[in-house]
Amino acid sequence: MSKLKAGMIGGGGDGAFFGRVHERACALDGTRELVAGALRSSADASMEAAAVWGIQGYPDYQAMIDAWKSGDLELDYAIIVTPNNAHFGPAKACVEAGLPLVCEKPMTFTPGEAEELAALVKETNVPFVLAHTYTGHPMMMLAREMVKNGDIGEIRKVNSWYNQGWLATALEDEGLQQAQWRTDPSRTGISNCGGDIGTHAFIAATWVSGQPVTRVSARLNSFVPGRTLDDDFNVIAELGNGGTALIHATQIAMGYRNDNGFQVFGTKGSLEWHQEAAEKLLVRRGAHDETYWIGANFDFFPQSIASYLRVPAGHHEDFFEALANLHGTLERQIRRARGEDAPEPYAHPSVDEGVAGMNFVKAAVDSSANSGAWTDL
Amino acid sequence: MSKLKAGMIGGGGDGAFFGRVHERACALDGTRELVAGALRSSADASMEAAAVWGIQGYPDYQAMIDAWKSGDLELDYAIIVTPNNAHFGPAKACVEAGLPLVCEKPMTFTPGEAEELAALVKETNVPFVLAHTYTGHPMMMLAREMVKNGDIGEIRKVNSWYNQGWLATALEDEGLQQAQWRTDPSRTGISNCGGDIGTHAFIAATWVSGQPVTRVSARLNSFVPGRTLDDDFNVIAELGNGGTALIHATQIAMGYRNDNGFQVFGTKGSLEWHQEAAEKLLVRRGAHDETYWIGANFDFFPQSIASYLRVPAGHHEDFFEALANLHGTLERQIRRARGEDAPEPYAHPSVDEGVAGMNFVKAAVDSSANSGAWTDL
Amino acid sequence: MSKLKAGMIGGGGDGAFFGRVHERACALDGTRELVAGALRSSADASMEAAAVWGIQGYPDYQAMIDAWKSGDLELDYAIIVTPNNAHFGPAKACVEAGLPLVCEKPMTFTPGEAEELAALVKETNVPFVLAHTYTGHPMMMLAREMVKNGDIGEIRKVNSWYNQGWLATALEDEGLQQAQWRTDPSRTGISNCGGDIGTHAFIAATWVSGQPVTRVSARLNSFVPGRTLDDDFNVIAELGNGGTALIHATQIAMGYRNDNGFQVFGTKGSLEWHQEAAEKLLVRRGAHDETYWIGANFDFFPQSIASYLRVPAGHHEDFFEALANLHGTLERQIRRARGEDAPEPYAHPSVDEGVAGMNFVKAAVDSSANSGAWTDL
Amino acid sequence: MSKLKAGMIGGGGDGAFFGRVHERACALDGTRELVAGALRSSADASMEAAAVWGIQGYPDYQAMIDAWKSGDLELDYAIIVTPNNAHFGPAKACVEAGLPLVCEKPMTFTPGEAEELAALVKETNVPFVLAHTYTGHPMMMLAREMVKNGDIGEIRKVNSWYNQGWLATALEDEGLQQAQWRTDPSRTGISNCGGDIGTHAFIAATWVSGQPVTRVSARLNSFVPGRTLDDDFNVIAELGNGGTALIHATQIAMGYRNDNGFQVFGTKGSLEWHQEAAEKLLVRRGAHDETYWIGANFDFFPQSIASYLRVPAGHHEDFFEALANLHGTLERQIRRARGEDAPEPYAHPSVDEGVAGMNFVKAAVDSSANSGAWTDL
Repeated sequence: MSKLKAGMIGGGGDGAFFGRVHERACALDGTRELVAGALRSSADASMEAAAVWGIQGYPDYQAMIDAWKSGDLELDYAIIVTPNNAHFGPAKACVEAGLPLVCEKPMTFTPGEAEELAALVKETNVPFVLAHTYTGHPMMMLAREMVKNGDIGEIRKVNSWYNQGWLATALEDEGLQQAQWRTDPSRTGISNCGGDIGTHAFIAATWVSGQPVTRVSARLNSFVPGRTLDDDFNVIAELGNGGTALIHATQIAMGYRNDNGFQVFGTKGSLEWHQEAAEKLLVRRGAHDETYWIGANFDFFPQSIASYLRVPAGHHEDFFEALANLHGTLERQIRRARGEDAPEPYAHPSVDEGVAGMNFVKAAVDSSANSGAWTDL
Repeated sequence: MSKLKAGMIGGGGDGAFFGRVHERACALDGTRELVAGALRSSADASMEAAAVWGIQGYPDYQAMIDAWKSGDLELDYAIIVTPNNAHFGPAKACVEAGLPLVCEKPMTFTPGEAEELAALVKETNVPFVLAHTYTGHPMMMLAREMVKNGDIGEIRKVNSWYNQGWLATALEDEGLQQAQWRTDPSRTGISNCGGDIGTHAFIAATWVSGQPVTRVSARLNSFVPGRTLDDDFNVIAELGNGGTALIHATQIAMGYRNDNGFQVFGTKGSLEWHQEAAEKLLVRRGAHDETYWIGANFDFFPQSIASYLRVPAGHHEDFFEALANLHGTLERQIRRARGEDAPEPYAHPSVDEGVAGMNFVKAAVDSSANSGAWTDL
Repeated sequence: MSKLKAGMIGGGGDGAFFGRVHERACALDGTRELVAGALRSSADASMEAAAVWGIQGYPDYQAMIDAWKSGDLELDYAIIVTPNNAHFGPAKACVEAGLPLVCEKPMTFTPGEAEELAALVKETNVPFVLAHTYTGHPMMMLAREMVKNGDIGEIRKVNSWYNQGWLATALEDEGLQQAQWRTDPSRTGISNCGGDIGTHAFIAATWVSGQPVTRVSARLNSFVPGRTLDDDFNVIAELGNGGTALIHATQIAMGYRNDNGFQVFGTKGSLEWHQEAAEKLLVRRGAHDETYWIGANFDFFPQSIASYLRVPAGHHEDFFEALANLHGTLERQIRRARGEDAPEPYAHPSVDEGVAGMNFVKAAVDSSANSGAWTDL
Repeated sequence: MSKLKAGMIGGGGDGAFFGRVHERACALDGTRELVAGALRSSADASMEAAAVWGIQGYPDYQAMIDAWKSGDLELDYAIIVTPNNAHFGPAKACVEAGLPLVCEKPMTFTPGEAEELAALVKETNVPFVLAHTYTGHPMMMLAREMVKNGDIGEIRKVNSWYNQGWLATALEDEGLQQAQWRTDPSRTGISNCGGDIGTHAFIAATWVSGQPVTRVSARLNSFVPGRTLDDDFNVIAELGNGGTALIHATQIAMGYRNDNGFQVFGTKGSLEWHQEAAEKLLVRRGAHDETYWIGANFDFFPQSIASYLRVPAGHHEDFFEALANLHGTLERQIRRARGEDAPEPYAHPSVDEGVAGMNFVKAAVDSSANSGAWTDL
């Protein structure tokens, strides 16, 4: 079975460490490889970066897509790692050309773009995975399965969060690129904290619980002087079944790294997961607590998850492996579409989740601006 | 130095385990002892319970106070452990009689009663400690001191919570007394979850941070069918300095016990504490995390806290010791008022915190009823 | 039911903080109280200390026992908190006089004394509890019950340890009394680290597993210059059923406080417990880990343990409560001997465990001196 | 910079999951790739397996080496993943041919082979990395650096362990290949538990502490009926500087996965690390505990380690990344030898550690057979 070949769009900038993360997630399993890229926004920088990375360079994404269409370049999928405001263009181009893709989140810059892209993907049926990396963690997948199976009953409440501290000071004034584009409305959109990490808490609340958010009451703050966008994001949300979700994120939690996690409270039990201890899932049903650990040898994983696991328990698959699982889901979709043998792809986030995430952030921004009034998605 | 003698009001019912907790907190240090009580609401039951406990019984609290006033009974302070709706009467009677007291929280049944009692206490200067047990935990006291000293800078955000699961099913229908009075508006007031445990999260947010809550936007839920009062309580609050606090509590978190805790995010660092791991305080200031442990031998405790510690590090003082510290604070106040030698009492919660707590719950109930509108305290 | 009255022997020195710990453990439940004491080795100091403590003083333990025998002093039991070399005298005197007692560990100064005392206790049937405080922790009791019930099968291996750091420097040269008597052979006996804390690891290995140690191979070290006794203690032991126990303790583990704990590996499962997180017991049987928590409401506690629990789950009973449980066991023995109503006392350590502990330390010292040769107990 | 090309020897069997692990560790960084293999012991199976893996197959390792020597195959290094008894042959052949290699541990089947191979590697200077995967964990590397820098003073004691439970029952009788070769003396050598996982505890004790083990007193057990080799391994060791190390491992710890870890106690502080929480290092120096986390952004990493880190803090690099770091060390050696630009390789285990590990296991086996007599390495 030959390796799938990937082409990257964006991700080559000095401050864009996530390009290298996708490169590794692509390569990890030995069944996919990065072969080409339009890594920067300027043509020259793009060609230079590709040379450094040791892949085939293109001046821009359209050129890469064209090369593929014309048969000059073998390609199986694209990886979009551009800044938020530059997702839509290449994503649309890929889908229109029929090229499957892994696209970074948030899916687009505006809800309108998201709707348009989603419609296109559904119409064309082009494989599309939204890179909500944490959903690739097998224990988060297990949480979702346990909810689906009714193991913890009807969902009443979700508490999901994301605490970071790296923007507790105005790093954007000290020249840090990652901080600059995130706090810049023209590149990051209507929300910084909400769009960047609030969406992770949102995915935990909805993708795991199986419940959509229907309306929100929000309070956004800009704590660090000089910022126009939020660096703190607090939402009380109503779920589709009448439950409540607390969805909160902050970038000013000094000393916190990527403290993302969730608690899901059902009528029969509770689930708790922490991204920084991604290897375990805490289940509470009554008398004693249960801790489930990652491991290919454990029977409690349904085949839909077990097929993603690489090693027996006690050797943890973590961040790169989680993202590799999303690439793996796209790979499975691609191979099965071709009639190749591949396990069933897991239901990782795609365009529906992308649209919902965009609408969620928009509703939260609006609610906060409107004194926390309950606002429909 | 002779032992202080205490008389208990309430606490003798079958389901009222907290009377026994106060008895132990009173006795622990060997400097105080429980000698008398009006333990039940009916005279006969009261006398019977006292006989079982091996203390001097009284048919009602007034009789006990009268016995003390007349010199028939030696008494140094009272402990009020009645249901919420029966705090005000005996508390007022004690204060008017000049008898110091430890009073269970919430301080009264209504904000009006709270204001009246607070005014009386301030006028008379009778020692009064509000039994917010967790504030007796030395690591929570240390958190408060670190904030006061500016160790973590200006407070921007607090996340404080209290997750319980014991009311996830309708135990009140199965005859459990603790569940019955808590879910009964006539005995528990306008809020069940908010008043019972939301107030603990509130104290964490305000007493530790040193910031009052000025207004709130709230969402209360009654998840278990048949309940009129909230069993789930979510508040976004504004702090006095413009910061934000998430204050949330729930009683439907299946399998959670007393998961109370807080995170305080300041401009120079962060604090995190969990009641179920009360022996440590997590401090984050940058490069590496710091964990502070309880222990009489540690220099990082200011004398105001060190004077409460009973043993060197590695042997944890926990729940009973925390409540004993509140009794100890009252003891110090009493002894110093008499000119006896005693260390300075710590600034544990008293009537101001009691009033604030009542107003907080009232504002939250109102806000929730008013679609989450921001509501002043 | 009237309170039991206790008299303390030793424990009144400036550096002898454990006297105050026993005082609190005695008082905690409100059913026992400390009323008298011969707290120091000199008569004057003894009388002075008692005055400070507010109890009836005696110049020496014999005088206190005599006062009780003559009816001048009401007393129900004694608490022996003298240095190691002064346990035997008062313990023997108490037993001969028929006074029940809680005796600090190690039980005596020499194995010979231990044998003699044990024989006397068995002959007279005087209630005797050896103050192995940690065995009073309900989760350690639960571990023992689970082994007894066969829940984890036949025991193959135990790993038990005690890491402390407080003697990593020569505090005895800086005048610290606790360090001085512990490192002084004339007061502490043939082993410092082994006798003081190795015995805790020994109790975990034997009392929990239900298996005696039959022989040992040991390596003792004196790391801190100037010491003649061990400050590091390592034993490989054979258990009665052919299993193996690693029993190790050290006082030079910089920054470690009272890191005592054990792992018990059986043919059907494993148990793990840490004194510094005494509120939980970790059980591993296969697919997922199980964590059991302390709490009066949990059905998994047999009545023999449940009868000791004071509060529902989520409010932890810790160090003082554990020691109070040992006082409680003595109290139950005393009350039942008198025909009073009291729950069945738990099988907490007594003279057999005391003798075994003395023999264990002796065998370890001998083995180490003999190049680790396997040495019978 | 072109990718290094690797050829794998062994690792293709059904039960040999570690071949796939090395494949991923090779591929992860996008700078190395697996291109060829002699994956099984029979020629046919070897060719078949290679076809499945999608790489160039060879009937045996010599054929692969010959193809490289003759220029038919581009190759930069070999990866040896054969059973223990088949390391020496291919390793020697690679070194003699001048092909760098990553070799699984234990390095050889006998100490004699180890000495011979080590001499050859030193003579030829062929890059050689011993695949002690855990030493690739950055926090274990940091521990070693802190010791080297004197941060925790002179080493007094090490406690290192490895608890597994997967061999608590006779899986070898149920046809599990992994269990069969490990418990078979003809394939695994003189020790099962000691050789397989005791060596990990040994590396922790010596590589991190910087102290060799000079002699040992050991007790090995075969708990599961029917086994001739040890499944439980306990060693008290003397370190080069006079310190003591407890080095213990077991395969019968029901429910334990890969609980490997160490505590290092020095005169100025202590270090503690757990493989199953590899992302953090616990440092104790006094007042409060310090927890160091993995993260490319942390200044406390010296450049020698920082150059291995792939992402900022909060996204953990774990098992595959650790092994990839060892491949990375070999890659750096190879590239620098060619004059290519590459960061300095870290001092990961190589032949000296391999020889020491073999001698350690031999001495432990001998000591145990000789009633625990102290035995020189």
